[in-house]
Amino acid sequence: MRRTILVLAAAAALPLAMACAGSKGNVTGEILGLERRALDGWLTGDPEPQLAIVDPEITYIHSAAATTRINGIVPLQKLYNGFRGTPLFDTYDIMDPHVRTSGTTAVLTYRLTRRRAAATDHWNATQVYEKQTSGWRVIHSHWSEVKERQP
Amino acid sequence: MRRTILVLAAAAALPLAMACAGSKGNVTGEILGLERRALDGWLTGDPEPQLAIVDPEITYIHSAAATTRINGIVPLQKLYNGFRGTPLFDTYDIMDPHVRTSGTTAVLTYRLTRRRAAATDHWNATQVYEKQTSGWRVIHSHWSEVKERQP
Repeated sequence: MRRTILVLAAAAALPLAMACAGSKGNVTGEILGLERRALDGWLTGDPEPQLAIVDPEITYIHSAAATTRINGIVPLQKLYNGFRGTPLFDTYDIMDPHVRTSGTTAVLTYRLTRRRAAATDHWNATQVYEKQTSGWRVIHSHWSEVKERQP
Repeated sequence: MRRTILVLAAAAALPLAMACAGSKGNVTGEILGLERRALDGWLTGDPEPQLAIVDPEITYIHSAAATTRINGIVPLQKLYNGFRGTPLFDTYDIMDPHVRTSGTTAVLTYRLTRRRAAATDHWNATQVYEKQTSGWRVIHSHWSEVKERQP
């Protein structure tokens, strides 16, 4: 069974996969919608859209903003509160997104391009989502800065 | 249900989780054993133990070794071939490992400490494993260098 899905991939999941993650055809669209809503929040320095979809036991790695892995939503809220009210960028793009589903899990990877005034930077993003009864929740994040500027 | 597991956690999985991932009690030990075997390979510049547990459709992000996300085992083999025969470190430690299971998936995070001669560096590691019929396979990796040296 092909497990890497594209936006237009057909929903052809096996019964067990269906039980775990639901129809695969729309997962990429759902996940990217949630991710954009979270990033849109940061356009105005609002961490709430991100926090609304963070699992209480999230593990969070950020190569610049945190010196060690953050374990759980409470210390993550504390980190985010330091940026609350500060727009992190004027515009952004989700570049080359890729979603792979595995049972109850969807692994989203992409490159985030951020622009603020004349500055542009790029970040590698891993967001591991889990399908819970209340919806998709981020159980792990890993952010790392791209050293070389990409075209 | 508590989803974060520790090495000595009791195996108390629900039927669906059992169907997806098997008994949870031993997952952390299994995953760490595979991870150590892969790292042990790099002690002698041998990528084969790592490649043996890489899924064909792996997505691979490395903030220093690759400028863009690597998609699939073939380009990853090409990257690894550049280091084949070169020991990447003399000793290493897996620091503060954490495994979270979700259905068929186990998300391993840790800090890798590498020592070579007088030099020591530190890396944030995310390894997303998927339980397949042939065993655990790495479906996503994300490596980023830790900028500040940790005690």
